[in-house]
Amino acid sequence: MSHIALNSGHKMPTVGMGLWKIPKSVCADQVYEAIKQGYRLLDGACDYANEKETGQGIRRAISEGLVTREDLFITSKLWCTYHAKEHVKPALQKTLGDLQLEYLDLYLVHFPIALKFVPFEERYPPEWSHQPGGPVIPANVPFRDTWEGMEALADDGLVKSIGISNMPGALIYDLLTYARIRPAVHQIEVHPYLIRKQLVDLAHTEGIAVTAYSSFGDTSYHEINMVPTDRSLVHLLKHGVINDIAHRLGKSPAQVLLRWAVQRGCAVIPKSSNPKRLKENLDLFSFELEDADMREIGKLDKNLKFNDPAVYAKRAIWAS
Amino acid sequence: MSHIALNSGHKMPTVGMGLWKIPKSVCADQVYEAIKQGYRLLDGACDYANEKETGQGIRRAISEGLVTREDLFITSKLWCTYHAKEHVKPALQKTLGDLQLEYLDLYLVHFPIALKFVPFEERYPPEWSHQPGGPVIPANVPFRDTWEGMEALADDGLVKSIGISNMPGALIYDLLTYARIRPAVHQIEVHPYLIRKQLVDLAHTEGIAVTAYSSFGDTSYHEINMVPTDRSLVHLLKHGVINDIAHRLGKSPAQVLLRWAVQRGCAVIPKSSNPKRLKENLDLFSFELEDADMREIGKLDKNLKFNDPAVYAKRAIWAS
Repeated sequence: MSHIALNSGHKMPTVGMGLWKIPKSVCADQVYEAIKQGYRLLDGACDYANEKETGQGIRRAISEGLVTREDLFITSKLWCTYHAKEHVKPALQKTLGDLQLEYLDLYLVHFPIALKFVPFEERYPPEWSHQPGGPVIPANVPFRDTWEGMEALADDGLVKSIGISNMPGALIYDLLTYARIRPAVHQIEVHPYLIRKQLVDLAHTEGIAVTAYSSFGDTSYHEINMVPTDRSLVHLLKHGVINDIAHRLGKSPAQVLLRWAVQRGCAVIPKSSNPKRLKENLDLFSFELEDADMREIGKLDKNLKFNDPAVYAKRAIWAS
Repeated sequence: MSHIALNSGHKMPTVGMGLWKIPKSVCADQVYEAIKQGYRLLDGACDYANEKETGQGIRRAISEGLVTREDLFITSKLWCTYHAKEHVKPALQKTLGDLQLEYLDLYLVHFPIALKFVPFEERYPPEWSHQPGGPVIPANVPFRDTWEGMEALADDGLVKSIGISNMPGALIYDLLTYARIRPAVHQIEVHPYLIRKQLVDLAHTEGIAVTAYSSFGDTSYHEINMVPTDRSLVHLLKHGVINDIAHRLGKSPAQVLLRWAVQRGCAVIPKSSNPKRLKENLDLFSFELEDADMREIGKLDKNLKFNDPAVYAKRAIWAS
């Protein structure tokens, strides 16, 4: 198992399983199966609405002796409605309760977007709009307050490492001016249609590990209708460049896409409900992409973000 | 003279003269000439290294009775080395002294980049690197401290309005959570090769006026070798789309580019050393671009920033 050394002193598996969009009904089984297959990093979030089921899968794997808690690296994410400093710890405790865990290995601020608080008992997870179908209501919470809340969790030992997600350059620089504990990880959408050289380089230069999400590009977004319809987009997993390389190496297109990210120094968190693919996605260290392959893939960049809150929540955090 | 109403209660001329790159030797004369031609907004900055000469031009125009101080709208910008709260007021006072003015109409934070302080007597303006040719040295100054310094200037009446420049979306949202005085203006690079719909819309939605700089795109950057050499770029002022519209309307390509920005609700700050063009650039309200023209120009977007500190100062504020 390959790892990335974090600035917190801990280490993070380079490959994990992402839990976004895994239905409650199958989540416990898929988590258990992933651990059985060798996954040690599970990347979840309050917003994914499956933390109880994730917890059940973990519990089963531990109780059957497949792994110990210490073998696992569990990530979750603070949702936008809990950015006020006094809500950060209760939000984590809710997540820990659902997961049946004493601590997290990594807790990320899901988006640099503060929204109006929604009590747990009113709606959980609260999603983007305060009322279903209603407007997205911002909250006047400076990111610094949120970060101080996160630092307090690390102080308390409730989380081993803290980090950020979906954050553009200028806000990272600002955070680094006041962070008592620097972010260990930045989790961002990265794939060959969105290479983000500047943002990845910035993080690495500042000693922040990068986790690339949505490694298969558009694939994750088709089922939720978040693919721009006005573009004639080749499915990334079916792209000729990716498939040619995969064919030559005797690997799957998914493995090529994941290896591309890993070879840039990023961690990856693919998801699959197919046991064979789950296994393949872990196997990223038995082969290498040549420089020429990396360059060819690099030419696919379209600076195309599939996950942009400007589109679905009117919060243009990526406006630049 | 057309104006834009600012959220500070003041109004800003829609067209002004930009003072970037005007050599000291001709600056006083050009400022005087611009005022004579009808310019009322002068857009300067500490970093432009010509504030004393700007002040001489203004002084001459006022003493000859062309205008009063109240007729003018004078903008300057806080340089990156003065972001610490205790340096904001001295930096403004230095600028006011050079300009021979009692107050500014608008003071902007030039970049959301805090750099190590350089005493006035050591180097002024201090440019990007602490020592000529040396590295760019960041300073741990949260943007909030800088903004509180700016707010204090407004409280003191030393500046009528305060604003920002070169700031991406997420950092603007963060600023708005703690700003006691909201920014009145956001000054950003905008031209048909860099349309920035999201960023302009965000500002307007939040009640922040936008000043578009570098309206002629690459034109400003050729003389300082800041045009990417790996692109076969058509000079914006010579672009067929712009020239066809100009020809049809009997206007100059520069007027078309400026009118395009103004018609999007932005202020513009062109510069010219040619008296005829200076006059033309003020004449933006005797004609209109049709919707079809606006759409055609909109198709020229390349998301191409000529002014990116990631390139020349290793500060990737636009990484997104």
